[in-house]
Amino acid sequence: MQCVKVVFLPDGKSIEVGAGISILEAAKKVGITLESVCGGKGTCGKCRIIVEAGAGNLNKITKEELNLVKIGKFSQELLDRGYRLACMTKIEKITDTDERIVVTVPIESRLGAQKILVEGLEKELKFNPLIKKYFVELPQPTLSDPKPDLERILEGLKANNVDFVETDYKIFRELPEVLRKGNWNCTVTIWNDKEIISIESGDTSKRKYGLAVDIGTTTVVGYLIDLNDGKLVSVGSILNPQIPYGEDVVTRITYCIQNEDGLERINRAIIDGLNKIIDEACSKANVKKEEIYEITIVGNTAMHHLFLKLNPKFLALSPFTPVLRRGVDVKARELGLKTNPNANVHVLPVIAGFVGADTVGVILSTDIYKESEMTLATDIGTNGEIMLGNKDYIEVCSTAAGPAFEGAHLKHGMRGEPGAIEKVSIKPDTLEVEYSTIDNLPPKGICGSGIVDAVAQMFLAGVVLRNGNINPAIESPRIRRNQNMLEFVLVWENETEKGIGDIVITQRDIREIQLAKAALYSGAKILMKRRQVEEKNIDRVYLAGAFGTYIDKLSAKVIGLYPDIPLSKVKSVGNAAGMGAKQALISREKREDAEAIARNTRYLELTIAPEFNDEFISAMYFPHAKIDRFPSLRKKCEELPGWSEILKS
Amino acid sequence: MQCVKVVFLPDGKSIEVGAGISILEAAKKVGITLESVCGGKGTCGKCRIIVEAGAGNLNKITKEELNLVKIGKFSQELLDRGYRLACMTKIEKITDTDERIVVTVPIESRLGAQKILVEGLEKELKFNPLIKKYFVELPQPTLSDPKPDLERILEGLKANNVDFVETDYKIFRELPEVLRKGNWNCTVTIWNDKEIISIESGDTSKRKYGLAVDIGTTTVVGYLIDLNDGKLVSVGSILNPQIPYGEDVVTRITYCIQNEDGLERINRAIIDGLNKIIDEACSKANVKKEEIYEITIVGNTAMHHLFLKLNPKFLALSPFTPVLRRGVDVKARELGLKTNPNANVHVLPVIAGFVGADTVGVILSTDIYKESEMTLATDIGTNGEIMLGNKDYIEVCSTAAGPAFEGAHLKHGMRGEPGAIEKVSIKPDTLEVEYSTIDNLPPKGICGSGIVDAVAQMFLAGVVLRNGNINPAIESPRIRRNQNMLEFVLVWENETEKGIGDIVITQRDIREIQLAKAALYSGAKILMKRRQVEEKNIDRVYLAGAFGTYIDKLSAKVIGLYPDIPLSKVKSVGNAAGMGAKQALISREKREDAEAIARNTRYLELTIAPEFNDEFISAMYFPHAKIDRFPSLRKKCEELPGWSEILKS
Repeated sequence: MQCVKVVFLPDGKSIEVGAGISILEAAKKVGITLESVCGGKGTCGKCRIIVEAGAGNLNKITKEELNLVKIGKFSQELLDRGYRLACMTKIEKITDTDERIVVTVPIESRLGAQKILVEGLEKELKFNPLIKKYFVELPQPTLSDPKPDLERILEGLKANNVDFVETDYKIFRELPEVLRKGNWNCTVTIWNDKEIISIESGDTSKRKYGLAVDIGTTTVVGYLIDLNDGKLVSVGSILNPQIPYGEDVVTRITYCIQNEDGLERINRAIIDGLNKIIDEACSKANVKKEEIYEITIVGNTAMHHLFLKLNPKFLALSPFTPVLRRGVDVKARELGLKTNPNANVHVLPVIAGFVGADTVGVILSTDIYKESEMTLATDIGTNGEIMLGNKDYIEVCSTAAGPAFEGAHLKHGMRGEPGAIEKVSIKPDTLEVEYSTIDNLPPKGICGSGIVDAVAQMFLAGVVLRNGNINPAIESPRIRRNQNMLEFVLVWENETEKGIGDIVITQRDIREIQLAKAALYSGAKILMKRRQVEEKNIDRVYLAGAFGTYIDKLSAKVIGLYPDIPLSKVKSVGNAAGMGAKQALISREKREDAEAIARNTRYLELTIAPEFNDEFISAMYFPHAKIDRFPSLRKKCEELPGWSEILKS
Repeated sequence: MQCVKVVFLPDGKSIEVGAGISILEAAKKVGITLESVCGGKGTCGKCRIIVEAGAGNLNKITKEELNLVKIGKFSQELLDRGYRLACMTKIEKITDTDERIVVTVPIESRLGAQKILVEGLEKELKFNPLIKKYFVELPQPTLSDPKPDLERILEGLKANNVDFVETDYKIFRELPEVLRKGNWNCTVTIWNDKEIISIESGDTSKRKYGLAVDIGTTTVVGYLIDLNDGKLVSVGSILNPQIPYGEDVVTRITYCIQNEDGLERINRAIIDGLNKIIDEACSKANVKKEEIYEITIVGNTAMHHLFLKLNPKFLALSPFTPVLRRGVDVKARELGLKTNPNANVHVLPVIAGFVGADTVGVILSTDIYKESEMTLATDIGTNGEIMLGNKDYIEVCSTAAGPAFEGAHLKHGMRGEPGAIEKVSIKPDTLEVEYSTIDNLPPKGICGSGIVDAVAQMFLAGVVLRNGNINPAIESPRIRRNQNMLEFVLVWENETEKGIGDIVITQRDIREIQLAKAALYSGAKILMKRRQVEEKNIDRVYLAGAFGTYIDKLSAKVIGLYPDIPLSKVKSVGNAAGMGAKQALISREKREDAEAIARNTRYLELTIAPEFNDEFISAMYFPHAKIDRFPSLRKKCEELPGWSEILKS
């Protein structure tokens, strides 16, 4: 039988298959699992792939695909860009065995693709990117005008009112050919009004892109931005490939300290990961990698150091000093990033050892530093940072709040992937549980927003007491003892995905949540005390990050995750850190503001605040040991079982 | 028998030898030939080596060595620095067979080492290098002052009145360890008052060096300069390792055009060569390579392009446009130079396709551009550049004059190496020849200064007529016909080095010299015409380059190499190009002047000057077709045989 090779990008895996085989089947054979809720019937529209080459060997667009366009589950625009459904796309006739079929599997089509937050609050700003392109037409040299190529270009730029600029010496090498190929017409890319970083043949002035990157401890997202108008053209994202070296920052830093080539490896991992993001974002939007002329980066201070290959050792040792605070500009080629080699990589400044460029990004994109409203903001990723302030000044502290809310350290915790329980309600009388999962798949575990809901609902149903103990007095099959620890059955085995068993929340899980929420609450409260503001003086609360976006604000308040501020003032601001990177990419003024934010934001080291211990302990209660801290919840609390005992304690 | 290993640097060759063997013998065994005029008797003092390690296995300093110090052929200072004579230095007792003996063979001790010009005219200048070092003592960070490391340093610099500076991101990586190792005392190196390029533990403020490099087509010289006082501390030099790719620039450019990886290879060759020079200069002066913080480079435009890995193709095609004119600053690490990786490499600007940074160096170091004296200067290397001007402006042209004066294309031509005939006189009556050779060795050939002397003397003796013909009418065994071409026997076989045979000057050799000198003379004369100056208006003539330094000024005038200007006004200025590199290294003002020189010097393309052909043809005569151009020689000429015939022609 005649066979043809199918190559899958960006994985690079390939397989020889014969006629009649679908791309979905071919993918499965090489170990790439595509989303396919309908099981390959062409009705869910999830298994999208992009045909890059070899379409001649494939069948034409099917009725099923066109039908999905009709009902809005697929679109003509995508079809025009080469998208198809892997289950419906088949090897039809093999006319030329040498012609390879190349398909790209976009991240959204991969099974288990994580819900990664890509959008954020959009504030107005002055569009003023640091990348500018100039098309210049030059006179040809002659024996009486043998001016050197570069000086010829500089004269051409002068006619465009561009005065003295420096040049990246890397552009010189190909310059003679570039100019002659374009018949002395060329396009000059200038960074920051001061350095020529690219010279291209002909008129390419409309092709300029930038990449804004948010390096999270767990997820990394890159936003490809058109630098003509600041619009998002595509997104690439991955799980942070440093995870194998440690789930949290301290483990990764320890890895660097304990292994001679640790920093080298862990840096290589993130650089390789970013190159995958660049591939993905570029191939989705049909942009050449060389057309990316600038990259902005945010991330916590550890991610910042590991990305720049800076020794992170002293971030983990008191007094936790970073190597540097201010923003860094460095050539993409020096870091190994596969964009235009002369692209500038701008790493935003950090505030302190535990408060990084991601926090600068949050403050930057939410305009807290510009507005008079007193704002309390938290960004909960793997770490939790808390900011309080306004245009006068901002104070910030950091807490190790995160892992529990990302599903780590919980018996059935998981990330926000398909099958994760994300909403929970419990009927107080019957303890019957209602829930929903991401993509409505059979439940596999609980993600951050699900656990907050579940704990709040268990508390309101009396299953959990104010001190966090599961109430042993309640008689219900859902409350049981397992290996000498109480647990609450959230979902029975018959409803869960095969092999998972009962999904439970254990006593230890609740302790994890108590520690995390107590850290966030007490951090906020200590900042408020220092600022001498009370709940009523807070004009708004911003919840940033994926967790802040998806949690139920009321549930979060019920467990006492943030102070008792009216829900109307609480707003999710999405991936505000990533938006900060984007703003710094498209606005010179914002980039300058970021430096001022890093310099002026006051860092509070919680561990040396004298009131921290007391605050932390009382915040372990639901919602708090001092119930008058939560007047809006007081009535609800008083109805709870065990209330009178707690008051006595 | 017990053996010990002897390692020879910079070659890296090694050999196991037993007691009683001298270093000279060991060197011979591994194929390293040392200068040893006395044959190993310890009387000539030539076979110097530097003992780097393993001195314990060697004999003590001998009477012979001390005696040479007495008579001035060796010095106590050198002995103190580890120098010894290879012939007198012996393996005495082998106490530890693991301890290796490491010796460096300096270039001057190698047999056949070329006479490479390293010194030049020294003009006064303001000592103001771009490299500065600051020793700063910093307070240790605490939990209440956890300022990042870099910001801590910047504050320390402020106390030294150093304000905002940029930082090379490469310094960040090791910064935390550097600061803590030095107990928060460190030394900061700043380039150009604007960028931190190195931070070192403790106080290293007195250790700062720079390297000034002259990349000639044939020879490459590096001057290691102490940036505390601008003094020369050592010199490293090599033959240009690009020579295998072509003796002249056009052949090397052609190699780049015809071979896909040609530019890559030819660039690699010069970079590797420079790294050898760095090794040599550093090991001689006991300087660490990391202590070199800046490098300045001069060279002709082709050498400039090949060093920077710029496409040289269009230098060889009309209208001969370089890629760029202005000076280039680039990090040593980006070029592959093994100094401090963050050292700045400053490549001086070029003037035109055939007038490079070496010419800028000549103008710079001789102060022609500053002074009111009308100066005619020529720099004769493989190419010959001619400059005319003063502080008002300077005009320059280029001629392909060089190869003959470097001994190329002549039957017995050779470079200025030991055994080369460098001085010649011929008795007109007997045609008896007196000569001297470099290092007084038996003659092997004729170098540039020798050939100018020889031709001038042959002309004055009537052996050569004014039109350059060897006079067939003279009867002498020295004038003979060989394969239908006349030749003059300069040295008979019995006096020459074995295997060389008679050393002759052929009719074709004289034609080569005529072409070369005619090019130089007519270039100078055309510049003078354009400037409307005559010989009497020229205040001085500078002869730059090795050839310009070693030639006999009168002989040069007799053959008509430069216009008839009194010898009292003619001065050799040594390696003025290299001196220009040195000045740009130690003086910011000079570096700025270099840019102005490159911008303002007017380039004259001789081939499009209408008078060039006529001038060139008449300049083929000795000293010139129009004898009134050389009034000072007129009387001598009139005495010459064949004079009356020539006047008729």
